[in-house]
Amino acid sequence: MKKIYLVGAGPGDPELITVKGLDLIKKADVIIYDRLASEDLLKNAKEDAKLVYVGKRTGDHKFTQPEINEILVKEAADDKVVVRLKGGDPFVFGRGGEEITKLIEHGIAFEVVPGVTSAISVPALAGIPVTDRRYSSSFTIVTGQEDPTKEEERLDYGNLNADTVIVLMGVGNLSKISKQMLRTRDANTPVAIIESGASDKQRVVTGTLGNLAELAEKENIKPPAITVIGDVVKLKFNK
Amino acid sequence: MKKIYLVGAGPGDPELITVKGLDLIKKADVIIYDRLASEDLLKNAKEDAKLVYVGKRTGDHKFTQPEINEILVKEAADDKVVVRLKGGDPFVFGRGGEEITKLIEHGIAFEVVPGVTSAISVPALAGIPVTDRRYSSSFTIVTGQEDPTKEEERLDYGNLNADTVIVLMGVGNLSKISKQMLRTRDANTPVAIIESGASDKQRVVTGTLGNLAELAEKENIKPPAITVIGDVVKLKFNK
Repeated sequence: MKKIYLVGAGPGDPELITVKGLDLIKKADVIIYDRLASEDLLKNAKEDAKLVYVGKRTGDHKFTQPEINEILVKEAADDKVVVRLKGGDPFVFGRGGEEITKLIEHGIAFEVVPGVTSAISVPALAGIPVTDRRYSSSFTIVTGQEDPTKEEERLDYGNLNADTVIVLMGVGNLSKISKQMLRTRDANTPVAIIESGASDKQRVVTGTLGNLAELAEKENIKPPAITVIGDVVKLKFNK
Repeated sequence: MKKIYLVGAGPGDPELITVKGLDLIKKADVIIYDRLASEDLLKNAKEDAKLVYVGKRTGDHKFTQPEINEILVKEAADDKVVVRLKGGDPFVFGRGGEEITKLIEHGIAFEVVPGVTSAISVPALAGIPVTDRRYSSSFTIVTGQEDPTKEEERLDYGNLNADTVIVLMGVGNLSKISKQMLRTRDANTPVAIIESGASDKQRVVTGTLGNLAELAEKENIKPPAITVIGDVVKLKFNK
């Protein structure tokens, strides 16, 4: 039976993939992978494995989601181990649900292998726990870039009331995001921006919600970056 | 130098620990572990590794957090690999922050090894993506049991405005939680309760926010269970 494994690659450090995910990479006949997955992981693939890059970049859409869906359907084969490797976790803004919907339409079986999401692990590796009994009983993970083709803008960052808010892919949007959040949060709320987290190039800058957009600009923050808003940023452990 | 590794064990399936986490279990001289971590993982420990159980149960507090902190300080040793193994991810209601605070007080080094959190992976393994471009641009993860020693109750589940809400450890509290959420959400909002997720004993029941508490009672849901509230539950893929 045709089957595709949707595997989360984790946040970037190749040791942070799951044991099951790495086993599947080693066994795979075909690996369809994103820009976000650590390229080092692919060194574990079989010599004759077929590697298919379907990465996307902001402003340079190499493959649209429908194109990726088509590739998945095309590569699925009865006698092959086919892995769809996605950065982080397949279901945290990874569009895994859309890919599965397509597979189901074509009668292709699937199995999801969850990964360590960057949204939690990147702050952790930068010393920031997303929950803490003293400061945070809830956290919200939100995209910083809502689908621009949506008819109405659903997202209002000012409405996200969890103790900690983690914004993914929001670098270009921090001015709007912080403006909305300042409606409901104090300007002194601590914030951290983590650039290139879970890698040797990690850079962490901290400030307050009131100066978030200026901070990103002054420090010349580039994607990929994750922004954490909330009192847990005060904890920021150093090893 | 004394050092403790805080390792996330993942959601239960022993193949869903990270490669780095498993390596540390194999190397460890001492493993201090919770009830939630899969016991199968401990089979990978060295024969002469010291295994220290510090699990807690609701209503049967075998070890208090200060006691666990003391054990960590006591077990840390210059010449030993000491692993603190925690279910899921160390920073998702894992009290990792409190343990690190204690380690820092005692000049003990630490390293966090993130894990796959149950909050995202248990719904995924039950076929529910926590985000989906069609239904959810944000999700909130919240404890269903706020620290009872807190002076004021901070949590109001009705204020959590993300598209998807995931409640951990909330089985005994679903009546209060759903009542608060019904202030701001439609009674027809789809919900799923996943009992013993990421294990062979997984059981999934679905309903609506309006009948959430009755559903849990009728189906006799027991902890551990995770509740997902939001339109993504409609997707619920079956393999």
